[in-house]
Amino acid sequence: MAMFPVEPWVVRETRLDLDDLGQTESLFALSNGHMGLRGNLDEGEPYGLPGTYLNSFYEERPLPYAEAGYGFPEEGQSILNVTNGKVFRLLVDDEPFDVRYGNLISHERVLDLRAGTLTRDVEWVSPAEQRIKVRTTRLVSLEQRSIAAFLYEVEPVDGPARVIVQSELVANEDTPDPSKDPRVAAALGHALLPEEHSGHGLNAQLLHRTNASWLRLGAEMDHEVEAPVPVRSHTEATEDWARTTFACELQPGQRLRIVKYLAYGWSSQRSRQAIRDQVHGAIAGARLGGWDGLVAAQRRFLDGFWAQADVEVDGDAEIQQAVRFALFHLMQAGARAEARPIAAKGLTGRGYDGHVFWDTESFVLPVLTYTHPQAARDGLRWRHDTLQLARDRAAQLNLAGAAFPWRTIRGQECSAYWPAGTAGFHVNADIAAAVERYVRATGDTEFELEFGLELLVETARLWRSLGHHDRHGVFHIDGVTGPDEYSAIADDNIYTNLMAQQNLLAAAGAVERHPVAAHGLGVDDEEIASWRDAAARVHLPYNAELRVHEQSAGFTRHQDWDFARTPEEQYPLLLHYPYFDLYRKQVVKQADLVLAMHWRGDAFTAEEKARNFAYYDERTVRDSSLSACTQAVMAAEVGHTELAYDYLGEAAFVDLYNLQRNVGDGLHMASLAGTWLALVAGLGGMRDHGGKLAFMPRLPDRLDRLSFAITCHGSILRVDVNHQEATYTLDSSEMVLHHHGERFIVSKDKPVTKRIPPPRPATPAPQQPAGREPRRRHRES
Amino acid sequence: MAMFPVEPWVVRETRLDLDDLGQTESLFALSNGHMGLRGNLDEGEPYGLPGTYLNSFYEERPLPYAEAGYGFPEEGQSILNVTNGKVFRLLVDDEPFDVRYGNLISHERVLDLRAGTLTRDVEWVSPAEQRIKVRTTRLVSLEQRSIAAFLYEVEPVDGPARVIVQSELVANEDTPDPSKDPRVAAALGHALLPEEHSGHGLNAQLLHRTNASWLRLGAEMDHEVEAPVPVRSHTEATEDWARTTFACELQPGQRLRIVKYLAYGWSSQRSRQAIRDQVHGAIAGARLGGWDGLVAAQRRFLDGFWAQADVEVDGDAEIQQAVRFALFHLMQAGARAEARPIAAKGLTGRGYDGHVFWDTESFVLPVLTYTHPQAARDGLRWRHDTLQLARDRAAQLNLAGAAFPWRTIRGQECSAYWPAGTAGFHVNADIAAAVERYVRATGDTEFELEFGLELLVETARLWRSLGHHDRHGVFHIDGVTGPDEYSAIADDNIYTNLMAQQNLLAAAGAVERHPVAAHGLGVDDEEIASWRDAAARVHLPYNAELRVHEQSAGFTRHQDWDFARTPEEQYPLLLHYPYFDLYRKQVVKQADLVLAMHWRGDAFTAEEKARNFAYYDERTVRDSSLSACTQAVMAAEVGHTELAYDYLGEAAFVDLYNLQRNVGDGLHMASLAGTWLALVAGLGGMRDHGGKLAFMPRLPDRLDRLSFAITCHGSILRVDVNHQEATYTLDSSEMVLHHHGERFIVSKDKPVTKRIPPPRPATPAPQQPAGREPRRRHRES
Repeated sequence: MAMFPVEPWVVRETRLDLDDLGQTESLFALSNGHMGLRGNLDEGEPYGLPGTYLNSFYEERPLPYAEAGYGFPEEGQSILNVTNGKVFRLLVDDEPFDVRYGNLISHERVLDLRAGTLTRDVEWVSPAEQRIKVRTTRLVSLEQRSIAAFLYEVEPVDGPARVIVQSELVANEDTPDPSKDPRVAAALGHALLPEEHSGHGLNAQLLHRTNASWLRLGAEMDHEVEAPVPVRSHTEATEDWARTTFACELQPGQRLRIVKYLAYGWSSQRSRQAIRDQVHGAIAGARLGGWDGLVAAQRRFLDGFWAQADVEVDGDAEIQQAVRFALFHLMQAGARAEARPIAAKGLTGRGYDGHVFWDTESFVLPVLTYTHPQAARDGLRWRHDTLQLARDRAAQLNLAGAAFPWRTIRGQECSAYWPAGTAGFHVNADIAAAVERYVRATGDTEFELEFGLELLVETARLWRSLGHHDRHGVFHIDGVTGPDEYSAIADDNIYTNLMAQQNLLAAAGAVERHPVAAHGLGVDDEEIASWRDAAARVHLPYNAELRVHEQSAGFTRHQDWDFARTPEEQYPLLLHYPYFDLYRKQVVKQADLVLAMHWRGDAFTAEEKARNFAYYDERTVRDSSLSACTQAVMAAEVGHTELAYDYLGEAAFVDLYNLQRNVGDGLHMASLAGTWLALVAGLGGMRDHGGKLAFMPRLPDRLDRLSFAITCHGSILRVDVNHQEATYTLDSSEMVLHHHGERFIVSKDKPVTKRIPPPRPATPAPQQPAGREPRRRHRES
Repeated sequence: MAMFPVEPWVVRETRLDLDDLGQTESLFALSNGHMGLRGNLDEGEPYGLPGTYLNSFYEERPLPYAEAGYGFPEEGQSILNVTNGKVFRLLVDDEPFDVRYGNLISHERVLDLRAGTLTRDVEWVSPAEQRIKVRTTRLVSLEQRSIAAFLYEVEPVDGPARVIVQSELVANEDTPDPSKDPRVAAALGHALLPEEHSGHGLNAQLLHRTNASWLRLGAEMDHEVEAPVPVRSHTEATEDWARTTFACELQPGQRLRIVKYLAYGWSSQRSRQAIRDQVHGAIAGARLGGWDGLVAAQRRFLDGFWAQADVEVDGDAEIQQAVRFALFHLMQAGARAEARPIAAKGLTGRGYDGHVFWDTESFVLPVLTYTHPQAARDGLRWRHDTLQLARDRAAQLNLAGAAFPWRTIRGQECSAYWPAGTAGFHVNADIAAAVERYVRATGDTEFELEFGLELLVETARLWRSLGHHDRHGVFHIDGVTGPDEYSAIADDNIYTNLMAQQNLLAAAGAVERHPVAAHGLGVDDEEIASWRDAAARVHLPYNAELRVHEQSAGFTRHQDWDFARTPEEQYPLLLHYPYFDLYRKQVVKQADLVLAMHWRGDAFTAEEKARNFAYYDERTVRDSSLSACTQAVMAAEVGHTELAYDYLGEAAFVDLYNLQRNVGDGLHMASLAGTWLALVAGLGGMRDHGGKLAFMPRLPDRLDRLSFAITCHGSILRVDVNHQEATYTLDSSEMVLHHHGERFIVSKDKPVTKRIPPPRPATPAPQQPAGREPRRRHRES
């Protein structure tokens, strides 16, 4: 099943399969949240998808509608593949190095999760029988966010060789067409308009701007070269490409060594001159410490990250590898995003057009909040930066407050599917929950005052205007789309209602803590009271006959999906059944009510959770990568530990094993986050309802030990779990915790160990829909 | 308010306002259901929209989606403006006759509802001070469906003039762009590809075919000329136009008289040679009887129509004119459609792309069934012809039986809006109801056996597979869109459920009458029983607290629309509010539950009708032209006779007074039908539930008399109503009728007169949403 040897700290590819290129380009993508380089081969081709991305560097395109409607967005946004600076073309005695020709003797690529580098070692015999070794190492600096760097080394093995290396910048490179709509391709084909180019010495620079979004881009490369023989070099530049050529004659064992520094800068406002200087300055900064300096800084940064974020899993080396891979990519996506969004694919591919969705706040930010809080803060600051756009959207929809977009890059709604784009309101509560969680976990009251308060107030206003009281005084939110994409436009979606309730109360709480600032936002006592009253009367649909909650009003009365007659090849269902049919039947794409039981576990009794989980697990097909992790979390809570473990496996391997067969479009950031959630909130049972930190750890048979750390108020809490007990260790200060419902205090240097009670599931383990059972990972008893 | 003098049998335009051209082109359109000519000025320009249409002659175009989904149709169909043969260009001493120049002394156009002709009388002074009279008459033959004919007469008034008349065929003429989507225009701009052309003597022919739909078209013109002076003439033809030129010198009072015969033929299968001969043969047929023959046949046809269809209204001359105008255009739309559809706009404009919707079966066919049954039969035969396409669509949607399209020309689903195109299932029950009504009203068992049975069986199968029983054995149809377009994707839409119930029972009944044919369709006793069982357990949502039925499950619990804060300029609401907001609130675009109470009045008690009508009338904004007539019908039934009369006015004047400001796109066939329905089913109280003919006539104060006729089993029943009594007269045979609930028999030569009881409304007259009250037409007491 695995493509890679199972190793704790690296992902290693030991043979090259051209069919897997798209997938490995995503898995081996390097990023710092500001820029991202797909793991394309250095020589540029073959490729699955060439990709170099800058966070929020996008082009606009018209969204076509055969039948338009009020409020449908007219412009879409698509992340752009920017000037490619990863390219090193190699000629050996006139033969271009290309793995499709000649003979590839050996191939290895290593993504090193502690070094933050991607290394490639190749031995190749050219069609003319010249044998060479190439070793390349690349990094995207976590320390200097505008900088990537490459070390390119080549040596002949058997005989003397004439070696030519061409290091390039390439703008507007050809990429496979992503869409059947000709206008998409028209808009994005040659999206970069040349503005300026220069080349001299070993340095070249290209400046471009986009046509519709009017963003300006600068890319610059510079080089250092080292060889035991004379190397001739020169640089050329034209509008869309620049090239530095190195030429020398090497004897066997002699090595040509080139370091390439690559810098990007972009702006919607700054002038050509300013961008020109900015990228040149970035290069100068990188060269200060040189290649070794960048490598050392990279490891320093990662040492710090792993010290506070690492998760150790004994007994399942695959999970161990997967969770570190997941944390590494989450860190990469958020480390230096700095008030730019963390997209669904990070900067690893162009899937979903590079858009950010609600799952950033609901899956990714909870992990970053407890492992790398600065990145969570940055992500929420980005939402705050787009607040005016969200206010405008709410006004367009005749609502108060702010309506954040279902999908976007820059902040404008970009969904052309109105049941999502004008009804997926829960994103607002998800943002509010992320704000509340971040503030409670960090105590960052300055953030709350400056950014959080306004986000909470404006989202609360949205809910108050969106919902209404019925003639019996019950508060309803009708006609919305919840997380489950196999339902839409439903009344009283329980996830939405519970998250809105929390949003309204969070806003009321924040307003009380910051009365002056709240006054400045126009909040008065009547408004606060109206939030609290609505929250108190929110409707939670419940089927008393079946004794389960309803995902939305009427859900449990709907027809059951005929799973027995749905063959495996009909999944994912959305590709084989019309929306109306999915929407009106009891079939769940992804956790919705079950997700509500995770994030709003305080709103359900233990028995309700058990019964609800059984009911919905039997109707959830997990056609979305946002499913398995949440099923794992709730399976663990209701005592189905082995099922939780199976779901953990599914969440953990979405990308590494390409379970959804679309990793080539980019990694699934939310599912990567789900790996951590399945371990920490699932097996570790961590909850933070109302800021109260609680754990209910319990290991499945197969694991011997689970150890994870969370950062809270600047302290690092480590939780070490085995089958008998859990040990809580704090590195500073003290903290109130709960272990399986028991309150206790842990303080610096005084670890506390607690016994783990056996599980007492209230229902038998549920049966998933026929053919949709998770792959069993637990030890069969 | 009226643009035209109020006259009983004509629509007369006495001055030309260029801003109204689009509207008058629609109002003055001539059609026989096979071809339609908009009332464009003979000289071709100025125009609102040039238009010549052949029923089902369309082009395909790709339907764009920014986010596509399973089952979304990929190809749309748009009616084409075909080769224009209406054009007569006139030069007077080198000055082109153009109403935008010179001086228009007098202008009159008359649509004669008994002659079936459009006549125009113009006196014009050219910029060079030449005064001429032009008189033109045109008809689209009701007798020879491929033929239109024109009489063009011109004479100088003050002095001698050189008169040149150019009679033309013009293909691919420029028309205003209908759409913002550039691809629509690209596909339709030059849609006709030339295949052949010829011109000799006074005759010319052009053959074209379409690019994507691959339909072949032939147009031919021929002429007869008469003048007291020599006339020189010649004909030229090229790929896209042909022209016959007549030239002479006329003295004052001398008249040039040209008769033009115009024939069309088209086919998806027949060869160029066959089409060439077909149109030439049609011309030969027309010339047999000549102009006078065509005029005489036209009047003969209309005399017959009016004898069985005329409605007389004493006391309101505007309504009198409007109902005859309506009947005339309904007759035109259906007379010779002959197994082609009757589109929403007939053949009077390109609105809705020339598509047919469910309102043909629900509004137009009920009128034709009782006034011109052959046309109703033809319309249903067309549905039968498309049955295999509907079966394919059902299979695509994973349903049994047949799923007829929401909108189409040729039979394939063309709706790009999935809440209509994959959820507006009620069209199937509407077709079934039209079949049942036609068969019961005519006794045409041959039709039932050959076409009706299969339509009933396949639509019943759809319902049985679409609905399901809940755990208490109640039958539900979930997630469908009913008639009201301000709701969608709702559970248990009561209109849909009641119509489906009727459909299931109608199929069961037809199968019993035709057991052998039913066996051939694979129907067995189990299937019939499953239809009856489902019908017996259909759920009708009801709010016991409010004591009203629900338009769909949960409707009455939804938030009320804030009518008080909705300014008038925000109507129609769909242009100013997003779908999700309209859908989740209690606001009704068009009769839905109220329509159910009309067509399924047998399913409600009198008290339920009264309460329901009051509740829904107060929430119905009538942003659709399909509203007022049904509100009139039910207002009359529940005893609000004066309100019914106001609604009748709104229905009657949608087109004549351009109430929706879009008559330029074509007439509203369903609203024209609604004029008749408001009079006959409304004030006349006619119902035909289960084939039982019943009347509850009652006049509003303002009317003195209402008289209408219906054709039933080949007999003509005339109902003559005044304030005291109604008289029923039958021209042959005998018939069982009901008058205000009392059963009686009427037979040939034995009219029956019955007293009319006073109304006893169970509720006060309802208040419509603020600003949406119908214009008062009743005499204020």
